[in-house]
Amino acid sequence: MGKRPPKKFNCATEFTLHVLGGKWKTVILCYLKERPLQYAELRKLIPTMIDKMLTQRLHDLVDAGLIVHKKSDAGTGKGVYLLAPKAKSLGNLLSELYQWGQTHAASFGVTVGTPLRELK
Amino acid sequence: MGKRPPKKFNCATEFTLHVLGGKWKTVILCYLKERPLQYAELRKLIPTMIDKMLTQRLHDLVDAGLIVHKKSDAGTGKGVYLLAPKAKSLGNLLSELYQWGQTHAASFGVTVGTPLRELK
Repeated sequence: MGKRPPKKFNCATEFTLHVLGGKWKTVILCYLKERPLQYAELRKLIPTMIDKMLTQRLHDLVDAGLIVHKKSDAGTGKGVYLLAPKAKSLGNLLSELYQWGQTHAASFGVTVGTPLRELK
Repeated sequence: MGKRPPKKFNCATEFTLHVLGGKWKTVILCYLKERPLQYAELRKLIPTMIDKMLTQRLHDLVDAGLIVHKKSDAGTGKGVYLLAPKAKSLGNLLSELYQWGQTHAASFGVTVGTPLRELK
């Protein structure tokens, strides 16, 4: 959402999906809904994403005002990303996206991991 | 989802987003959640989509077992697309996607249309 977002959407769902911004941004928002995370933690949580992509998606989300990059007090470089106030209203929806997958994976014959729980 | 879907996903949200299958498929599912629709009706509901894309997305959704193409009894060619039993569990999630957009559009400074309501 680096460029100026449209002012009119054909339907409400199109707008919601525009805000969520594609698969990886939505996945990042889902994790940050649970707790603030360092870049290195996000990296571990989404191992299939290359650095360049993760950096770009985080940049886009900051740019859209949905997440904030809070620098560490000590200036160690270990800042965290967290949901911005603007994204708080997405909380329930992000939970639903996670919950549906959790509940229905087995009936689709797939298994899903819980990387946030396993994060050291 | 024409090719065989993965059997394991890194997290539940990734799986859910895989099933929803990207912006346009999700929009189509949202409409079909409301009622069965003819191809020409879907065409009017999503005016920004070209025929080739709509046809392909519908084909993918049928292929994934999420929607069904029910031919007309009279063989007039005016069959309808409807949600398949496998997609019924997505109902709440699809409603949430619509509702969030409806509720929060104004606070993001955008307006959203209601094309299904205006469909003749």
